[in-house]
Amino acid sequence: MSGTRTGEMIDRANAEAIARVMAATPVLAGVARAGDVIPALGDDLLLHAGPPIGWERMSGPVRGAVIGALLYERRARTEAEAAALAASGRIRFEPCHHHAAVGPMAGIISRSMPLCVIENRAGGTRAYTTFNEGYGKVLRYGAYDESVVERLRWIEGTLGPVIGRALELAGGLDMKALISQALQMGDEGHNRNKAGSALLSRLLGPFIVRSGVPTAQQAEVFSFLAGNDIAMLNPVMAACKATMDAAHGIAHSTLVTTMARNGTDFGIRVSGLGDRWFTGPSEVPRGLYFPGFTAEDGNPDMGDSAITETAGIGAFAMAGAPAIVTFIGGTVHDAVASTLEMYEITLAEHEAFRIPALDFRGTPAGIDIRKVIRTGILPRINTGIAHRQAGIGQVGAGLVRPPRICFEEALRAMADAI
Amino acid sequence: MSGTRTGEMIDRANAEAIARVMAATPVLAGVARAGDVIPALGDDLLLHAGPPIGWERMSGPVRGAVIGALLYERRARTEAEAAALAASGRIRFEPCHHHAAVGPMAGIISRSMPLCVIENRAGGTRAYTTFNEGYGKVLRYGAYDESVVERLRWIEGTLGPVIGRALELAGGLDMKALISQALQMGDEGHNRNKAGSALLSRLLGPFIVRSGVPTAQQAEVFSFLAGNDIAMLNPVMAACKATMDAAHGIAHSTLVTTMARNGTDFGIRVSGLGDRWFTGPSEVPRGLYFPGFTAEDGNPDMGDSAITETAGIGAFAMAGAPAIVTFIGGTVHDAVASTLEMYEITLAEHEAFRIPALDFRGTPAGIDIRKVIRTGILPRINTGIAHRQAGIGQVGAGLVRPPRICFEEALRAMADAI
Repeated sequence: MSGTRTGEMIDRANAEAIARVMAATPVLAGVARAGDVIPALGDDLLLHAGPPIGWERMSGPVRGAVIGALLYERRARTEAEAAALAASGRIRFEPCHHHAAVGPMAGIISRSMPLCVIENRAGGTRAYTTFNEGYGKVLRYGAYDESVVERLRWIEGTLGPVIGRALELAGGLDMKALISQALQMGDEGHNRNKAGSALLSRLLGPFIVRSGVPTAQQAEVFSFLAGNDIAMLNPVMAACKATMDAAHGIAHSTLVTTMARNGTDFGIRVSGLGDRWFTGPSEVPRGLYFPGFTAEDGNPDMGDSAITETAGIGAFAMAGAPAIVTFIGGTVHDAVASTLEMYEITLAEHEAFRIPALDFRGTPAGIDIRKVIRTGILPRINTGIAHRQAGIGQVGAGLVRPPRICFEEALRAMADAI
Repeated sequence: MSGTRTGEMIDRANAEAIARVMAATPVLAGVARAGDVIPALGDDLLLHAGPPIGWERMSGPVRGAVIGALLYERRARTEAEAAALAASGRIRFEPCHHHAAVGPMAGIISRSMPLCVIENRAGGTRAYTTFNEGYGKVLRYGAYDESVVERLRWIEGTLGPVIGRALELAGGLDMKALISQALQMGDEGHNRNKAGSALLSRLLGPFIVRSGVPTAQQAEVFSFLAGNDIAMLNPVMAACKATMDAAHGIAHSTLVTTMARNGTDFGIRVSGLGDRWFTGPSEVPRGLYFPGFTAEDGNPDMGDSAITETAGIGAFAMAGAPAIVTFIGGTVHDAVASTLEMYEITLAEHEAFRIPALDFRGTPAGIDIRKVIRTGILPRINTGIAHRQAGIGQVGAGLVRPPRICFEEALRAMADAI
């Protein structure tokens, strides 16, 4: 087949893929127990962020989160027991992404966890994600002490059911509209979700009070939401996942539908290349470290949260979120430049996600592996930074890019496939 | 006294005035009945926005709001009765600003209304304001039908008490911190208060559910807050009022401490010139009209809400609120230019209110009448536009400037006073 005709075929496939991205209607529809909606998720399976990985290659914080999840599931009584069980081969590990799910940072999902359910009715896809745990010692950053497990139990026993009931009464929340509003309010949807979290809380308020649960529990939920500026991150990630899954599996499309990291490897998947991962070593992000920590402490990048950039927000929308530079470093100029650069490697400008500061230009949406290779520009990703040891937690936030090899190998595979 | 020494004296006075603006700590402390906290507010007194005005010179929408307030207070049973009473001389009218209060648009305050109480403990000042009624037919835009009065009664019977109780439990809300955050989230604090309103709702949530009022009432309050993107406007105005009042009354200071409009006249007051108003004709704003309306329908500008610009936000902070141009007209470039222009006529850059898009530069704060006259640049004000007839309501939103004569006469008075 000639180069030109191949190019046209790819363009057509990409046009279809992007049409599905734009047509997506992700709705935060409800809450369900992980084991109920992900049938494979039995006692011996844990899901994790990023491409496939086993215990032996997992980094410290991911191991920490595995230990925490086994303690939470009462599969072990001590850290040592949990680590031994995880290493024994009796626990299997699979990517969240293989089960229509996403998780931030370590991204561990175990069967008892309540999950947010996102339905993209237009695309016929569903996506799941955990509840965001807030700040401090949290499972997703590899902490697993008693306070972490206790909070997970509170999420299971209180937060999940209350939000689930509120969502039922609300008839679901339109995530596309919410993300679109939040992008006009200084969020980029990945590291900054302050506006989205406030909007989420405000929208659910009337339904939480009608939920019929005891006042004390309602108050706990309101207090938790009032104190968590990233409550919206997980639903946003799942909205992006449900959106990009709808665009996956289109023959010849060079659209990136997944970017994800497991703390060791960075992996991408491409619409026209099936479920194959193209991986390379995950890098330690560059950014701002919390007092007392340095880049020496940083773990290689991790999490499924790069699904936000994959869908055209996060670092791709940073021109609309200048306040974020106080958190991840850099200048306001860098934030604008980040968005502008991403137009070079994307297929479209988002129809719903617009940046007022760029005269309401749509965000750069839909990474094309061809453009990445042609321009040499790698996608930018905003991210949190975990301590490289298990049990400590977040030590900073910053920026990272995927390894080039992911895109090179994907493009080679595409060439082979055509 | 020589010109130079006069200039130094004024500079010292202005430095003291600005220091008080920066030191202000406005807190949304509670809710009280207007008649209880404004002792003069008997049965026969109504407060209104802007400089003093009597019934005979009031524009349509202000008359409409007066009629609505008299119906709400049960001083009249019909529009005709209310209008006759208002015209009879038995009702007195005084500016909100004479009673430490501010009201948006018509700004009518009557004795039974619950007011938000703002305390600026650092400055030893207090300010009061009504609850924002939301959208559609509302008293502040001169509507007075049954739905308007009914909503005012609901605010009196439900919203005011519930928010009052929640504020008691919360120990008050730090308005300076809230405004500062909202300015990093695309609000300018005058025509756009979406972020501030969402933050307000989220912060009050935990205390509303602990308020002990029946669930049905809580649900009404949460629903009202969830649907009102300008719930925060009135408390922001009162925070600005409590701030600027602390800087008022400093001999020789040329700082503008009030800009306000009554729908007929625009008036300013100046720190070193006592309680005297300097007035000129209020102009019809230029902006975007709702479908079915044109500039022909617009009333001359009205409301105490220009206290926001007086305190360094609103149009002065528009560079941080580019999304606002879809509501008030103009381009994103105009929004940035608006803020940049205001640095020419202000005394300081705000220490707490910063604009990420301008590399976190403080907003232009504190209008100097000398600079206005020297540069010929008049302050910019973002505003809503009321229909010129009573009973209709809002027909658009836009931008307006004060008449130059206010500043000319104030400067002349200052020259006479020195």
